[in-house]
Amino acid sequence: MSEQRPSPTPPAEDATPSDEGPGRSAKGPSRRAVLGVAGAAAGIAASGGIGFQVGRQTAPPPGEGQFPFLGAHQSGILTPQQDRLHFAAFDITTDSRDRVIALLRRWTQAAATLMAGSQVGGGAVGGPDLLPPDDTGEALDLGASGLTITFGFGRSMFLADGADRFGLADALPDQLLELPHFAGDALEQNLSHGDLCIQACANDPQVAVHAIRNLARLAIGDAHVRWAQLGFGRTSSTTRAQKTPRNLMGFKDGTANIRAEDKGLVDRWLWADGSDGQQWMHDGTYLVARKIRILIENWDRTSLSEQEDAVGRTKGSGAPLSGGNEFTDPNFRARDSAGSLLIPTDSHVTIAHPSRWDGVKMLRRGFNYTDGADALGKLDGGLFFIAFVRDPRAQYVPMQEEMSRADRMTVEYLRTVGSAVFAVPPGVAQGSSLGDGGAYIGEALFA
Amino acid sequence: MSEQRPSPTPPAEDATPSDEGPGRSAKGPSRRAVLGVAGAAAGIAASGGIGFQVGRQTAPPPGEGQFPFLGAHQSGILTPQQDRLHFAAFDITTDSRDRVIALLRRWTQAAATLMAGSQVGGGAVGGPDLLPPDDTGEALDLGASGLTITFGFGRSMFLADGADRFGLADALPDQLLELPHFAGDALEQNLSHGDLCIQACANDPQVAVHAIRNLARLAIGDAHVRWAQLGFGRTSSTTRAQKTPRNLMGFKDGTANIRAEDKGLVDRWLWADGSDGQQWMHDGTYLVARKIRILIENWDRTSLSEQEDAVGRTKGSGAPLSGGNEFTDPNFRARDSAGSLLIPTDSHVTIAHPSRWDGVKMLRRGFNYTDGADALGKLDGGLFFIAFVRDPRAQYVPMQEEMSRADRMTVEYLRTVGSAVFAVPPGVAQGSSLGDGGAYIGEALFA
Repeated sequence: MSEQRPSPTPPAEDATPSDEGPGRSAKGPSRRAVLGVAGAAAGIAASGGIGFQVGRQTAPPPGEGQFPFLGAHQSGILTPQQDRLHFAAFDITTDSRDRVIALLRRWTQAAATLMAGSQVGGGAVGGPDLLPPDDTGEALDLGASGLTITFGFGRSMFLADGADRFGLADALPDQLLELPHFAGDALEQNLSHGDLCIQACANDPQVAVHAIRNLARLAIGDAHVRWAQLGFGRTSSTTRAQKTPRNLMGFKDGTANIRAEDKGLVDRWLWADGSDGQQWMHDGTYLVARKIRILIENWDRTSLSEQEDAVGRTKGSGAPLSGGNEFTDPNFRARDSAGSLLIPTDSHVTIAHPSRWDGVKMLRRGFNYTDGADALGKLDGGLFFIAFVRDPRAQYVPMQEEMSRADRMTVEYLRTVGSAVFAVPPGVAQGSSLGDGGAYIGEALFA
Repeated sequence: MSEQRPSPTPPAEDATPSDEGPGRSAKGPSRRAVLGVAGAAAGIAASGGIGFQVGRQTAPPPGEGQFPFLGAHQSGILTPQQDRLHFAAFDITTDSRDRVIALLRRWTQAAATLMAGSQVGGGAVGGPDLLPPDDTGEALDLGASGLTITFGFGRSMFLADGADRFGLADALPDQLLELPHFAGDALEQNLSHGDLCIQACANDPQVAVHAIRNLARLAIGDAHVRWAQLGFGRTSSTTRAQKTPRNLMGFKDGTANIRAEDKGLVDRWLWADGSDGQQWMHDGTYLVARKIRILIENWDRTSLSEQEDAVGRTKGSGAPLSGGNEFTDPNFRARDSAGSLLIPTDSHVTIAHPSRWDGVKMLRRGFNYTDGADALGKLDGGLFFIAFVRDPRAQYVPMQEEMSRADRMTVEYLRTVGSAVFAVPPGVAQGSSLGDGGAYIGEALFA
């Protein structure tokens, strides 16, 4: 899983207890020694391994999983889906193309550091005593925890109200569209869109929150968070080894998802290949994010029979109502002894099934969320839908238009309150150097 | 850990795949058989074991931990602190004492069922086909996951605007006080108070959210959620085996906490003994909840030196600035070579140290939270403080008054936006029967 092994140096905290005695003589620079961290070297020390540079002086504590940052594709897409999410959309506040590039360089280096289970800046606490610490510190003991960080670019970074803000208008892919209005959309602008996005997924939510917080901090002066979303449980699987999880409707979700093992489907439906002329997106993909509130009280008052008819599957096993098990193909022509179709024609599984859409597939990677209670004391929660597709125009819009009009589950029980599409550029190639003058996410766009 | 072992019956879902074929002949009651669940028997089937009755026909999948519901004290207090929280405060909407009692009976039985890793109503999906399912289903495959459920009663249940709503005014303990206004309080009423509370803690946040959701559902018509809070990472430990976690300031938190092993401290500071005449609270305790927003951008721009001075501990190891390791007692008289005190007199550790407060201790059980970004794009997050004490008047109020005025960390970097106190009654004794006419949480209050 990990191609970038930390050196076996023990964490500074454990290595230097004797430094922490009362001999500490002043509030000044000596405290850096107290912390036992060579913070001054942060950002330039080679970590060894596969040839990229990340500032890190100390080995991370053992994490539950560590994924490589470098690669043809960004992490957090085909990575086995982690259970926890923190997602943030940003608005760029600078007018300077150079400052956007510098921000992407800082983010790239920090993302590599964080994914390695280390702290921004490279130290255990880090930084000189009289400056704010480079890292906020709350993930110091938590390791990598399977963290992945995925960056995306919104349409408004290329073109906003007709303005070519950063000289990128010619590079705007047609796939990075403004979604049409769908029936049932009740979009709130402060939960939608954004110039940039970062998806942080991890096994420990504190690690994901820490990543977004520290990346937001690195953006101060150039970009700020427009909206953010915590997701507490995955609603899909991206590998065959993962059990299908349940959404807040209580049903198994993502049964028909593309999995990493489906090489042919992945190549066909996931990765952009530059054939549209936007070579900078080669090996990238497009992220559709939709914050879908479930009308939970309505759903919870609905009979089991109606719930299963709306979904088209049994609630227990997730099998289609035509029989079999979770992974059995639905038989849309099967009838009961009275002659009625077993799977209603307006069920979700009927409307969304690939057989209706020329076999179109998407890679779903969504999460359950709750934002507490609304003003009426109702549980405010639902699905933070995330899908990765090579072309939302073909793989998302037509099906969503039909679902929003004709799918009983969607029409009766869901309201979409947030919406965004982002272009997810390719990864930073193996062997690249990061940091000042080094490689960065989206480099081909600005080249 | 578990005193209530499930019978080894396999989960219905796995046991009955052959029932799910197309032979299913109608949308009616036959679907109950499809689910393979004897939902009709829910609530009366003996689970075996230690002599209480919880409706459950199927064994839960293997969970990561299961705690007994029955006992002298409620769970979720001295239980090794789980990593995830969903907390909800409720307003009672009925005027009927009998309906409140019936609600507490339903909640008690459901809590025992949920903590056993089972579904409300007892079935895998449960309930007849033409009725809404008893359980919402999203935790069906997640097991017990260390779930604990803790109930509390707010002052307004006893006395609201001078009205004795349910004939309980005489049973109002003096300890269940209205907290005074503290400097720095910026309380929002819709994040404060409540007639009842439920604290659900688990290793999996989906299990905690599921518990609150289903208990809220059982309250429909009698009570509704007033406010709710998700906590994503614990900020304290309640056993010696647990590592001290970090709060969103990046510092280790709860180092001086009472631990379950400290029998003398637990008996002295945690459990009410009825000596105040409120016998119904014997073996209960009081819960203080405070939603404390951290002014994160201010904190993050502060130098390491200032952060450590505000806390009085090093950020790396958590040792007091007078030296040693995390668990070394601070030496408030230690000075550096220039004659300055190593621990500033206005540091948090100085103001809050038990030596200043006649040795007073509390059992802390708080959580980090984030609610996303605020309207200015700042991270809206902090500490959802929870403490259990036998008397908030002695163990919370005096120290908080001083902290809110004189503790640099609190004054400069924290704002309290929510506040509540609840009386947490004793547990339901081992050997009790639950359900209709059975024992319930708070029974001695209504007896």
